[in-house]
Amino acid sequence: MKQILVLNSGSSSIKYELFDMDSAGPLESGLVERIGEDESCLKQSFPASTSTPPSRSIDVSVPDHQQGMELIRRALSENASFAGGRHLVGIGHRAVHGGETYSGPTLIDDRVIETMKQLVPLAPLHHPANLIGMEVARSAFPDVPQVAVFDTAFHQTLPAFAYRYAVPQDWYRRFGLRRYGFHGTSHAYVAKQVARHLKRPLADVNTIVFHLGNGASATAIRGGVSVDTSMGLTPLEGLVMGTRCGDLDPAILIQMGKQSGMSLDQMDEVLNKQSGLKGLCGANDMREVLAKESAGDEAAALAVEIFVYRIKKYLGAYHAVLGRLDAVAFTAGIGEHSHEIRARSCSDLESLGIAIDAARNTSVEPPICEIQTSESRVKVVVVSTDEEFEIAEQTLACVQNAGN
Amino acid sequence: MKQILVLNSGSSSIKYELFDMDSAGPLESGLVERIGEDESCLKQSFPASTSTPPSRSIDVSVPDHQQGMELIRRALSENASFAGGRHLVGIGHRAVHGGETYSGPTLIDDRVIETMKQLVPLAPLHHPANLIGMEVARSAFPDVPQVAVFDTAFHQTLPAFAYRYAVPQDWYRRFGLRRYGFHGTSHAYVAKQVARHLKRPLADVNTIVFHLGNGASATAIRGGVSVDTSMGLTPLEGLVMGTRCGDLDPAILIQMGKQSGMSLDQMDEVLNKQSGLKGLCGANDMREVLAKESAGDEAAALAVEIFVYRIKKYLGAYHAVLGRLDAVAFTAGIGEHSHEIRARSCSDLESLGIAIDAARNTSVEPPICEIQTSESRVKVVVVSTDEEFEIAEQTLACVQNAGN
Repeated sequence: MKQILVLNSGSSSIKYELFDMDSAGPLESGLVERIGEDESCLKQSFPASTSTPPSRSIDVSVPDHQQGMELIRRALSENASFAGGRHLVGIGHRAVHGGETYSGPTLIDDRVIETMKQLVPLAPLHHPANLIGMEVARSAFPDVPQVAVFDTAFHQTLPAFAYRYAVPQDWYRRFGLRRYGFHGTSHAYVAKQVARHLKRPLADVNTIVFHLGNGASATAIRGGVSVDTSMGLTPLEGLVMGTRCGDLDPAILIQMGKQSGMSLDQMDEVLNKQSGLKGLCGANDMREVLAKESAGDEAAALAVEIFVYRIKKYLGAYHAVLGRLDAVAFTAGIGEHSHEIRARSCSDLESLGIAIDAARNTSVEPPICEIQTSESRVKVVVVSTDEEFEIAEQTLACVQNAGN
Repeated sequence: MKQILVLNSGSSSIKYELFDMDSAGPLESGLVERIGEDESCLKQSFPASTSTPPSRSIDVSVPDHQQGMELIRRALSENASFAGGRHLVGIGHRAVHGGETYSGPTLIDDRVIETMKQLVPLAPLHHPANLIGMEVARSAFPDVPQVAVFDTAFHQTLPAFAYRYAVPQDWYRRFGLRRYGFHGTSHAYVAKQVARHLKRPLADVNTIVFHLGNGASATAIRGGVSVDTSMGLTPLEGLVMGTRCGDLDPAILIQMGKQSGMSLDQMDEVLNKQSGLKGLCGANDMREVLAKESAGDEAAALAVEIFVYRIKKYLGAYHAVLGRLDAVAFTAGIGEHSHEIRARSCSDLESLGIAIDAARNTSVEPPICEIQTSESRVKVVVVSTDEEFEIAEQTLACVQNAGN
């Protein structure tokens, strides 16, 4: 029996999930949240198949990440299937930004930690929290190999003409300003699931994946290889998101900065947290936005129209990039659960060989389901993403490779 | 005989062209340049059919736009076909920005001038020069109706979901931050020429126009109506240009501002004047960039790849927007003259029904020429744009309308 623990460390939380890699199933998942705040707590979930209750929440003081990690270690120890960690062969860490250094899962050692520290300017909000997570996990499980799985790694295959911006060369060379892309773990996982479902080798399938969660991105994948993606230097570019603006005339920052007197930090805050669906209609949860639209709210209706229009433009752009398109996949919260968004994003695309069947679209069964019409040349597939399991698989492969 | 004078007033120049509208031909064109500088001059060009030499340049002191306009008035008076202005029925002014106020050619009066002054914040560089041109022309030709033809007007038909950005509503309502689009006069002219050439009603033809000059933009045109365009609030967004960056992760301004300490004005300058082809390889003229590429310059090769890749992405995006696509048109300096750029922008698009014939592409005859293969479902057309003549036509129509 081989187990992999997956950790996702944020600025005030640590998520974890323990997998049995032989059965490809989760044994326990949970999170420590509000670390350093007054009301921190530990939440645990267990598979329905076990005798434990499905979930529980324990209020407990968690002053810092080290104590949070210790809490997780103790929680796992109480789980019989963890067996005192005897089967734990690796710990996989979700890492937001690997820069141009990391194009795959990487065994963490002191040198890797040092290199990652130099990448902090590329992801100043998320990177320090990732690093803290790695450090506390290494001290809690000193004998277990630890692996960093980067959100950007899958997109390191982008050709230069897709990742470079038309800014002075110096901005790229000195400051590393280029398209990196994110959600790579999810895009990679979904592309593999689509090929497996179509019973075709991954190398033969061209897919556009729309990962539509609170963050949203599109990736053009040629034979399993990412060739373009909508997020850029940061997760701000591309599709409209819950609270992020996506694509924008860059001159808007210049004009707003001058006309409103807002600082760069203030505009950063607005564009990341007060824009997107929220900026357009006041709600950032697509379910709420759709409900407002149904109730006659014009701002919400416009927000949905902009959201699906941006998807449609990326679908067309990446179709041109890929040439031959085999499948369009929808994943993550909105992609998996909103038939309205899927239907409206793919409306009037018959000339591109894409058409969704209304009945199939409204009766989707997880984890993977085709929803195109019988005339549609391109398959349209709804896929349940599982970034944690993909991290676990990459971690296991990396640990086994290192052992050879 | 009806004559229209077309004026394009910049910050230190006034371009003019006089048309005979019955024969649809130019009678004289020219410009006063370096107004207010030491070495200002008047340049004139005459049609080959007349007995005058084809062109001449006169060095003359031009301290301000009023004197520049007076110089043009005197130059025209010496032209026999001008006949002392007896046939001059209107003066058309190229105006960069009409905001949301102007969606067509507009007869200029004091109220229009006042309204246009309120639009200065939308185009702080170009708008004041446009206004000065109108004022001096009104005082030089007080009895001739004057018409403003806005670069943005053609795009006022964009649906809200195409022109709104996903930023707080307030940014749109209070500051007018939305997609306006530019080059509208050229896009409108080219769409009409394509429909005429295809012998189909304009209302039945869906076209994507690529205006590729030193500035570059793409427009999706459904039945003669602009439904989306790549330039945005300003001409900075969209395709890669000679010195402008085009599309960019907006967070790049935030990171560069913080890391380099550049001010908004400095970044504005870099993104508008030191980016695009120039930023990528040091040359902003595509002929020079292509020559450098041929000589083995890798930076120039990458610049061309990024330039054509961005065109291909907009082609795909607007194909999805239009659904049915009838024609792709290339116009302006690069679009009309670079067969390499046309060929590379449309490579590997057979699955979209687009293919260029190499022989036709390298033997283009102006003013309009088809270059697709016989298998290509979509027509690919090279069109000589003529913004001045389009302004003259719109001016004449506006003057005649006002007279009814």
